[in-house]
Amino acid sequence: MATQPELTIQGWGPADPLPSSAPDSDLSDTLPKAARRYLTRELGWSPRPTPPVAVADIRLGPSRLPEQARTRLVELLGEDNVRTDRESRLRRAGGKSYLDLLRRREGDASDAPCAVVLPGSTEETAALLSLCSELGIVVVPFGGGTSVVGGLAGVDPDDRPSISVDLSRMSSVQSLDVPSSLVTVGPGMRGPALEQALDEHGLTFGHLPQSWEFATLGGYAATRSAGQSSTGVGRFDELVAGLTLTTPSGVLELGHPPATAAGPDLLGVALGSEGTLGIITELSLRVRPKPATSSYEGWSFRSWVAGLAALQQLARHDLLPDVVRLSDADETRANLLMASGTGAKLLRGSLRARGHADGCLLVLGWEGLPPLVRARMKAAAASLRDGGAIRLGPKVGQAWKKNRFHGPYLRDQLMDGGLLVETLETAATWSALPTVYDAVRRALRESLTRAGRRPLIMSHVSHGYPTGASLYVTVLADRDETLPIQQWLTAKRAATDALLGAGGTLTHHHAVGADHRPWMEREIGPLGVEVLRAVKERLDPNGICNPGVLLPE
Amino acid sequence: MATQPELTIQGWGPADPLPSSAPDSDLSDTLPKAARRYLTRELGWSPRPTPPVAVADIRLGPSRLPEQARTRLVELLGEDNVRTDRESRLRRAGGKSYLDLLRRREGDASDAPCAVVLPGSTEETAALLSLCSELGIVVVPFGGGTSVVGGLAGVDPDDRPSISVDLSRMSSVQSLDVPSSLVTVGPGMRGPALEQALDEHGLTFGHLPQSWEFATLGGYAATRSAGQSSTGVGRFDELVAGLTLTTPSGVLELGHPPATAAGPDLLGVALGSEGTLGIITELSLRVRPKPATSSYEGWSFRSWVAGLAALQQLARHDLLPDVVRLSDADETRANLLMASGTGAKLLRGSLRARGHADGCLLVLGWEGLPPLVRARMKAAAASLRDGGAIRLGPKVGQAWKKNRFHGPYLRDQLMDGGLLVETLETAATWSALPTVYDAVRRALRESLTRAGRRPLIMSHVSHGYPTGASLYVTVLADRDETLPIQQWLTAKRAATDALLGAGGTLTHHHAVGADHRPWMEREIGPLGVEVLRAVKERLDPNGICNPGVLLPE
Repeated sequence: MATQPELTIQGWGPADPLPSSAPDSDLSDTLPKAARRYLTRELGWSPRPTPPVAVADIRLGPSRLPEQARTRLVELLGEDNVRTDRESRLRRAGGKSYLDLLRRREGDASDAPCAVVLPGSTEETAALLSLCSELGIVVVPFGGGTSVVGGLAGVDPDDRPSISVDLSRMSSVQSLDVPSSLVTVGPGMRGPALEQALDEHGLTFGHLPQSWEFATLGGYAATRSAGQSSTGVGRFDELVAGLTLTTPSGVLELGHPPATAAGPDLLGVALGSEGTLGIITELSLRVRPKPATSSYEGWSFRSWVAGLAALQQLARHDLLPDVVRLSDADETRANLLMASGTGAKLLRGSLRARGHADGCLLVLGWEGLPPLVRARMKAAAASLRDGGAIRLGPKVGQAWKKNRFHGPYLRDQLMDGGLLVETLETAATWSALPTVYDAVRRALRESLTRAGRRPLIMSHVSHGYPTGASLYVTVLADRDETLPIQQWLTAKRAATDALLGAGGTLTHHHAVGADHRPWMEREIGPLGVEVLRAVKERLDPNGICNPGVLLPE
Repeated sequence: MATQPELTIQGWGPADPLPSSAPDSDLSDTLPKAARRYLTRELGWSPRPTPPVAVADIRLGPSRLPEQARTRLVELLGEDNVRTDRESRLRRAGGKSYLDLLRRREGDASDAPCAVVLPGSTEETAALLSLCSELGIVVVPFGGGTSVVGGLAGVDPDDRPSISVDLSRMSSVQSLDVPSSLVTVGPGMRGPALEQALDEHGLTFGHLPQSWEFATLGGYAATRSAGQSSTGVGRFDELVAGLTLTTPSGVLELGHPPATAAGPDLLGVALGSEGTLGIITELSLRVRPKPATSSYEGWSFRSWVAGLAALQQLARHDLLPDVVRLSDADETRANLLMASGTGAKLLRGSLRARGHADGCLLVLGWEGLPPLVRARMKAAAASLRDGGAIRLGPKVGQAWKKNRFHGPYLRDQLMDGGLLVETLETAATWSALPTVYDAVRRALRESLTRAGRRPLIMSHVSHGYPTGASLYVTVLADRDETLPIQQWLTAKRAATDALLGAGGTLTHHHAVGADHRPWMEREIGPLGVEVLRAVKERLDPNGICNPGVLLPE
């Protein structure tokens, strides 16, 4: 079990045990001058230092864990693995959504768990859940703590004491079956540690979401994550060959690789269950040989509509690359302003000269055996040119790859400067996607525009399927310092209503959590909710497993 | 809604309304002389005419449907769509397993439904299920009637009257979304009709199981079918973007293409539910452009182990073709004996000369855009040669393709000549597959060998995945005319215990039905069974939906 760095409490990035914040609050180190000027003009925002309160000043209520319960937990797991100290509790308070960060930056950690426990095995977790079910203690599994949808912020309707079940002690490779391309791991393992373990066998896993440095494999499964290469390697749920779901009613061993027709897919019921049915305590994952070659490149389209149409053509012919990322004009403009140096300046000039000044950038990444990559790239290039694209070469692709995990770090800095910064995402069929895009943008614009202020809404498609694609939206706006939480909740509500109304799904890869829960019935219907409830009642009869997320009240 | 031919009652193939049997019972038209000689010697079997009883002599009990219930059904669906005549009931009795055929050939149709009803829409089906739930009438959905695992032969523990819900009135294309590669169809539609409807748009669906001529799209979904091209186009469950599951408790609209992370996958709960949760009344399926090129070819390996190792190498590098079919030495020998003509003779000679007299034949099929097919074939060929394969060229592949739906027809003829003929299938990881293969063969051999008689056991791998492959086994033996059902039940039990013990799954694509039901708890565990039961109780509280299949007692 490798030691994995913990996340900082009020933002993103590896933390010292108790960091002191010294943010770059005028953003002069963070943003190129042109980008700052552009944002100021576009948003009606003036950069201003709005640093978080000192960590030492974050308010945290006393633990409500009954002493008798603590004693039973210690008997089960040992003194070291039952923690009620301030720092342990603070670090497991909520996730990393904009709302989570707002609360933590303002000094509020009232949603912190009463205790943190660290089981070391499936057996210990089973005993733990059984005990908590008996004692009426709420359990919230904790992997990387990177949820951006309030997955760790559910509110128990019965207001019982709650504990965070940290899975970091179960974070090693259990076994590797090279001929079958399967690795079995603990749920607390993170992507970098898995890649390191696979590297010596010439293998890779290849799931690379933006949270890759900190998120855990168990968390990916519980939330049905998608990564930046998911168009090629598949969504996380497609890479799970089996898992162990430990519940208050017992242990489920799910999945039978390579495939089965023995009844309904129960593995698919555990995936996306977000801790509400139990805790994932082991995973069997599909690995693959490290790609012999890898090629990233940039293309440009005159318009978003032309870009979507061209991707749809690639998709229907199974020509999509492993990484695909089409930015709309607003995101393209922002990305080009963020890039500094002579190369970026030349690129901007060249795009202007070719009539693509308001164009849309497409990043493609190809991986695999060289002759196949060559053949796929050639066929795709012909199709893209037919669709009006111009090729920008490898530099644009490599620049994106270099900065692929950069977003959440930048968010902290923008928040330090007085900005609202949040993302949301959905997916829709190719037919519905343009309507969904328009509807979301309109809703966000209407909600976030007020006297002299308006939002910047930047979108991209980043996971392609034969039948449709995902849509990822980043919003920047001048933050309302009086009611910042209300400002975003109102905008998010409008955007969600709009995207569902236009045929989008509630979430393509961020999951439901507490934030999307009010729309679950609209997404899967009242009878669908009833089915989930029936499963939950069977596995978690006392409702201790992560209440307040996923399932509507 | 195109008229689709009905299946003959006692075997396979399109039937006149009431066919008279005139079987070729000495098999001289069916089998080449060398094959007959080989079977006689190998099995200790002497061909003998064992024709089925005349259809007119099949015994069928009186309908137990209460008159009052019939009246209510007629009020709902109309007189034409509620049928209790002998022929309607006979045609929906059971499926097409060897055991089903034995019973029908012996003149037993005691498992026939009391009535056949034909709803025309989701709304009518919802009202029908609600009515039957109220009246305590068992409903068994009827698509093509091609189940080979007793999917239509469940026994209701409460012995209530049962009706067959024939879905043939819901068999047309509802809508086609070309940009999103999605077609919406009724559950009673069959593959040929769908392909015909897609053809004019340059599209194909491409799901081609051996039952393709008669099985329905709803049936494929309910049983998690796999087709001969599933290695390339995907299993049926992977091609379902959404479906409507109509239950006694209401209607579920499941699936949100292209993908979602909004909670557990309820679509996957409907897939493989085998009529136990309700009736699938609409499906949204992924289609694709008709392949620009298609290339079939044969290869040979010296041994089964070498063939498996070579396929595993292709699989891990994502180089598997769209169709892959590796026969073991016994199946290869039988296939070569079945082939007549100069080409076949030359092939046999050539294989002998190259030391492959006891070799294993591999059929590969490639489809898609020409440059990609070429690149994939070239990369795969290099890998296969490294694994010791020799290329036999396109004729072997084309011969297989020509006869791809032939198996079930041949079975009838072999049964006419006094043979036991049945198939079974499983899947396992590449690591476990050789052990599963040995265990199944040993179990069947031990069970079916008696004084002077022994079985012929022929196997192939026909669906490859990165993590493993399916294994399909065909068994021939001299039929025990005294206790033919017992003979096969004993062998099947031994084979199933053996394959589960070695790590195989209970079924890769035939489903569970009544036949595999005793092993379901072993496959998914007692708690897994409880989860399925909880879902069933919510959707079908009176247990009217296809009792006696899938879920163990």
